This record gives sequence, C-alpha cells and structure tokens, in this order.
Amino acid sequence: MEYTAEIICVGTELLLGSVVNTDAMDVSKALSELGINVYYHTVVGDNPDRLKAAVELAKNRADIIITTGGLGPTYDDLTKQTLAESFGKKLIFHEDQAERVRGFFRHLNKTGKMTDNNLLQAWFPEDSTILENSCGTAPGCAFLSEGKHVIMLPGPPRECRAMLKSGVVPYLLALSDSHILSHNIRVFGMGESAVEERLHDLMLSLTNPTLAPYAQTAEMSLRLTAKANGPEECERMMKPILNDVLAILGDVVYGVDVDSLEEACINHLKEKGLTLACGESCTGGLLSKRLTDIPGSSAAFSGGVVAYSNRAKTSFLDVPSELLSLKGAVSPEVAVSMAEGAMNRFGSDIAIGITGLAGPDSDGSDIPVGTVYIALAAGTSRFIKKMSFGNYDRDRVRTAAASNALDMLRRCLTGLKPAPEIII
Amino acid sequence: MEYTAEIICVGTELLLGSVVNTDAMDVSKALSELGINVYYHTVVGDNPDRLKAAVELAKNRADIIITTGGLGPTYDDLTKQTLAESFGKKLIFHEDQAERVRGFFRHLNKTGKMTDNNLLQAWFPEDSTILENSCGTAPGCAFLSEGKHVIMLPGPPRECRAMLKSGVVPYLLALSDSHILSHNIRVFGMGESAVEERLHDLMLSLTNPTLAPYAQTAEMSLRLTAKANGPEECERMMKPILNDVLAILGDVVYGVDVDSLEEACINHLKEKGLTLACGESCTGGLLSKRLTDIPGSSAAFSGGVVAYSNRAKTSFLDVPSELLSLKGAVSPEVAVSMAEGAMNRFGSDIAIGITGLAGPDSDGSDIPVGTVYIALAAGTSRFIKKMSFGNYDRDRVRTAAASNALDMLRRCLTGLKPAPEIII
Repeated sequence: MEYTAEIICVGTELLLGSVVNTDAMDVSKALSELGINVYYHTVVGDNPDRLKAAVELAKNRADIIITTGGLGPTYDDLTKQTLAESFGKKLIFHEDQAERVRGFFRHLNKTGKMTDNNLLQAWFPEDSTILENSCGTAPGCAFLSEGKHVIMLPGPPRECRAMLKSGVVPYLLALSDSHILSHNIRVFGMGESAVEERLHDLMLSLTNPTLAPYAQTAEMSLRLTAKANGPEECERMMKPILNDVLAILGDVVYGVDVDSLEEACINHLKEKGLTLACGESCTGGLLSKRLTDIPGSSAAFSGGVVAYSNRAKTSFLDVPSELLSLKGAVSPEVAVSMAEGAMNRFGSDIAIGITGLAGPDSDGSDIPVGTVYIALAAGTSRFIKKMSFGNYDRDRVRTAAASNALDMLRRCLTGLKPAPEIII
Repeated sequence: MEYTAEIICVGTELLLGSVVNTDAMDVSKALSELGINVYYHTVVGDNPDRLKAAVELAKNRADIIITTGGLGPTYDDLTKQTLAESFGKKLIFHEDQAERVRGFFRHLNKTGKMTDNNLLQAWFPEDSTILENSCGTAPGCAFLSEGKHVIMLPGPPRECRAMLKSGVVPYLLALSDSHILSHNIRVFGMGESAVEERLHDLMLSLTNPTLAPYAQTAEMSLRLTAKANGPEECERMMKPILNDVLAILGDVVYGVDVDSLEEACINHLKEKGLTLACGESCTGGLLSKRLTDIPGSSAAFSGGVVAYSNRAKTSFLDVPSELLSLKGAVSPEVAVSMAEGAMNRFGSDIAIGITGLAGPDSDGSDIPVGTVYIALAAGTSRFIKKMSFGNYDRDRVRTAAASNALDMLRRCLTGLKPAPEIII
C-alpha cells in the first residue's frame, strides 16, 4: 500500500530561529527513500495544546505521524505525554529503561547522582516499541493506534539521525515486506538545472527505481533508489538506470556512493600509491583542510603550505621573486611555480598550486576579484586552469576554487582530459 | 499591540529532504528579534490545494502570514496565485517589474532572449507592496487583507535573507512606531547549559530588552534585543543588561557584535600590528582556513604549514628529528617546536602549533584518539594546552582543536590568563 506520513517537530528553539530544522530534512529524506509520501511538516513549540492541535490535523491526513523533539528529561519535554493523550493511551514505566538511565549517570559521575526528572525517560505510551538511542539518554518509541503509526524521535540532530537508521527505517520496512537499496551518484561541473534538463524524461519515466536530484554547495548528487523483495533484485533493477545516467552525464560524474570530491581524490591516490602536496594562496588552507577531512588521508597527503605573502611563496615554495615581480602573484606562471615548489619540497608525486583574488577587495591591480589560477603538477606534466568567479562572495570563490582543484586532480588521476573552464 | 505570525514554506524539495529549511529559521529569527510571536511553521509542497489549506489555518491563528518559496517563473511556482485566491484578490500586471525582468535577461545574454513564463514575476495581488529582490529576479510582495498582513518571500535562502532585511523588517517595524536594536554576545569555553544556568534568572526577568541564547558548533552566543522609540533609548536600555551579562560570564565572552573567534583574533592582531603564523598537523589546514575566511586577514596572517608527516615537520618547521623520535609527533614538546618553527620561518610575531590524533584510528601508540596539544609562541613566551576529545568524531576534534587554539590566541592578545582545559 501507499503510505502517507506527516512530520511534526517540537521545539520552541525552532520557532525562535535559534536552530535550523535538520530533523525535518533527515526524516523527510529517509521517508522519500522508502517511497513514503510526505505532504506536510509542522513545527510547534514546547506547548501541549498546540502540539495536540497539530496531531489532530495529522491524524486526518496521514497514515504515519513522526515527531521529533520533546523526549528529554526537562519539564518542557512533553511529546510522549501529549501523544499518549491524543491517542488515549496510558504511560507505562519501563524498569529496564530506568536502569539504563541510572547506569548512564553512574558512568558519567563517580557519585552516580541523578535528578529524578531523568526517569521521565523511562515512561512510554502503552504497547510502545522502544527505539534505542545510541548517542543520547532519551529513547524514542513507536506505536500503532487508530490505524495510525506514531513514531517519536529525539530532537538533537545526531540522535535523531542515528535512530532513523537504527530504528525507524527497519520499523517502516517491516510495514511492507519490500527491501530498499540506494546508490548516490555524485556530479561536479554541471549545474543542477542542466543535469535535470538532461535527465528530465528519464526521471519522469521512473516510478521504481526512483531518481532524485540533491543540490550541494558547488556540486550536486542524484539518488537512485529501488524497492524490491531483496537486495539482489534492487541491484538488478538499478543497474540499467545507473548505466543510462552515467552514459547521459559522462565524466561530470566523479563517483558513485562516494561522499565527496576529496574522498574520491584520496581513494584514487591510495589505489595508485601516489602522494599529493599543495601550495595555497587565496584558498588559505581550505584545500588541505578538505583533503585531511578524510580519515586515513595521511597515507596520500604529504602536506601543504598556506603562502599568502610573496615572502612565503618564495621561502616555502621556491617561487622566484623575479617571477612574482614580473608576472604578479596572481598569474598562471606563479600558480605553476607554487605547484612545482610544493611537489619538490614535500617530495610528493603530484602537487596543486592555487593563487587568486578571493576578495571582497581588489589588490589594486587590474585583475578582477574572483580570478583564480589553479595549477597541477604531476611528474613532468603541468595543467593550468583559469577561473573567473566575479559574481561570487569570498566564501564561494574559495569553495569553488578548492572544488575545481580537486576535480582537476580527479580527472588527472583517472586519465580524463582536463575539465573545460566551468563556473559552478 | 502584540502580533502573532505564522510561517508557511512552499517547496516540494523541502518535503523530499533535498534541502534544509533555512528560510523558516531566518524568518523566525527576524520575527523574534522584532518581538513577534511565532507559534507554527508549516511546510507544504508545490501544491495549491494544500497551500490553500495551510493558509486557511493560518488565517485563524495569526495576524501575520509569511510565506517563502514559489515566486519563481516555473509552472509550479504558485504562491502569489494561491494567496491571491485565498484572499479574493486579482493579480495585477506591473509593467515596471516586467521591464526589470526583461532588463535582467538583456544583461544576462547578448540576445536578451527570455521565455515568457519569466513575466509571471511581474504579476502581483492587487494593492501589494512590492519587495525588491537584490539577489534574484523574483520580487516579493506584501498586502493587508481581512485584517491579516500577508508577506511573500522568495525561496532561495540568500534572496530570502536579503529581502527580510531590506523589505520585511522595515515593513513590520512600520506596524508599530518602535525601533529595534540588538547586540550579539559571543561566548567560547562555556557550554550552553552552563551559560543558561548562570543567566536563567536574568533571562526570565527580562521582557524588553530580551536575552536569547543561540547554540553554535563548539560555541554559543547570546542575542540582546531592545525595542524602544529610538536607537539611543534602545542602547540605554541594553547597557546595564549587557554589563550584567559580561560581569556574570566573565572572560568566556570573546566579543560583542563580532562574528567569530577568528574575526576577533584578526581584529586584535591588526589593532596591535602583530602577525601570526601556524604549523598544523591534525587540524590539517582548518586553522589557516578559518583565519583566512576573514576578509583582509592577509594583513595579520603570514601563513601556515600543514605538516602531517614527520618529514614535513622537520623540513618546513625545523622540528628536530631527535625530538620526534624521543617524544613522539603527538607531544607538547613537538607542538611547541612546531610553533617556534612557524614563527621563525614566517618571521611572524606569534605562531601556533597543533599536533594530535583526530582519529578515527589510533596511530598504534598508547596515545588515546582525541588527544591534541596546542602550543602558542609569542616572542619569548610559550603557552601549551592539552585537550582530550575522546568522545568526539574526527570532525569535532578538529573543529574544537582549532577553536581552542584561536581562544588561546585571543586570551594571549588581550592579556588574559590562558584558558583552563575546557572540553567543548
């Protein structure tokens, strides 16, 4: 059967704009991957009456009601009590859960002191399935009443996300006997609208598997999801679609089921047993930072130099001071020289050099703000790319510059022709 | 009078979990700073019937209805049409807005080609106030009908945020003759709950000015907001509260109306005419990246070295290889040596050295993952701090390490005693 779900997020901090509602996004994403329709999100404060009103509405328009927040130990955590009332259920004390909470405090402090309000986390609506919380003290729960599936999740994003995976998805999958598998197709160098244009007909023609685009900063991804009786069948259904997508998009796809450009690059480097170094000016360490975000990157990343000043470019990357005065710090020649310097000084197989004007202010020269030169040195080969991000702010210039550097590296490592000058 | 507002966000991408709903947060924050109560957020897809249902509900429980999204030129952008219907208003064609859109396309492409659907952005409900869009083509609008103020904003977060500031806040301020001013008090080194505990009575005692806590990654801030007839009166009302907060919290407040620890540090360095360099191991460029996020940081930041390998530590930062073999790369001595090396090599006044284990995997030694040593060298003085982030993931270890390094620098630059070992 086709299920419809509604998400109710509880928390005054959301209504004050103190925090962004990532829970609603995470729950929605999980549900859409399960093929469950979501027609409404509602956010209410820590107010039982308004929460009850939202629940009454949801009862009349959804089969599944998922709440986030209000499961904690403080006086204003009222979600379980309110939902129990809405569905005419008593709250039941679970001794095993109480013991778990006590144990948590014993572990937390020598004295094992715990205020009694923490035991609120051991009370659940009758006939509830308890959803364990792997990152916090407040468990979630789920029950079926009046033909509605009610699922309550904790508010802290990490706890909510973990419980979605460990508790909610299995619970919802059990509603049908079908199995769900997804592949994440990562795209860099083609805008979302251009991708959607190329895939529009395919996306519309699909019902199962489904193909959904997700926008990211300076890149995008496509999520291919199949629903079938078993994983093998899911894979069998997705294979031809995946091949179609790869054929249609070509080499702007930098990976499938990989998390980021930097992860793809680190993986390629490790496979080939190569090492990378970088010399950064305008990106100021962002490229190194992103590469070292990846666990185990030390095996492939030798290191980097953030050379803002000409002095640093000369003394750390052996950029000739004549070259700097002759061509200027923001020039293709200096970018190449920075890459070569990093390669030699770190003794790496490959190196990237980036120099440019991130802005907002010009350097007084006639070089427009947003101009960035990216050079890649690999053994004796040299690649150079000029980017013009005139309409970007400092942040986006730096992010796009680092991303384009990583894409150049990815293309070089996979034997692809260097990318055309794409402005993301 | 006390106004109540309701926010309705329109966009199927929100229900699919493709994007996070930053608009709801931004609008809520703006409204709470204006002292306007928000009791509900509702999210609906690009579906006129469900949007109309949400509007009918909002009519019955709010004085102000603010929508985001659905103002664009595509067929599924139906917010203006639907709201006009809900309030029984005709749509009026605005020639000047049509000309502005045409002009945008003339500017965009030589041919000035524009598909007609773009002119949808020139139609508005009768008697609307047009809200100019400084970052996009779709203007917003506002009208008063049936005693309700209806305000429609574009969905793209940058456009929505800009229009809030330029159009919505002035529009709402005009509803009352009062003036609003805020101060942002930035705190590092004390958790949100500890801050709230210390300020609890003060916060509860306040109605105008108000004092609201906002959580950030590894830090927090407090927003003090006053409503009065003029800016001077606002300042006069806030001054004693601000002093109370500073007295209660002490030196964990790193700045008022400053954006970040890195900005505070760059400002202090510039004021004192000092320069900074850094040698990073486990933070892998994150510290340099954050410092260079600040426009104009080049005046105070000489540069940095990302020295992951021992070889890099030796060749770029002059860390004696004997020291590395004797004490190990993750040791206070090596952290100090990295800072000294960075200071000498970059010729800076101050330098920071960071070495540690970000994890997730151990380095085979008995040093627990999450151990980080931060050293600060300033002329002949040396400061060293050991952090233990055992329960953090790689990301949080790196962020907390960089933040603590910046806080050490901030304290050193303002003549404060080094911070105790706080785990954020």
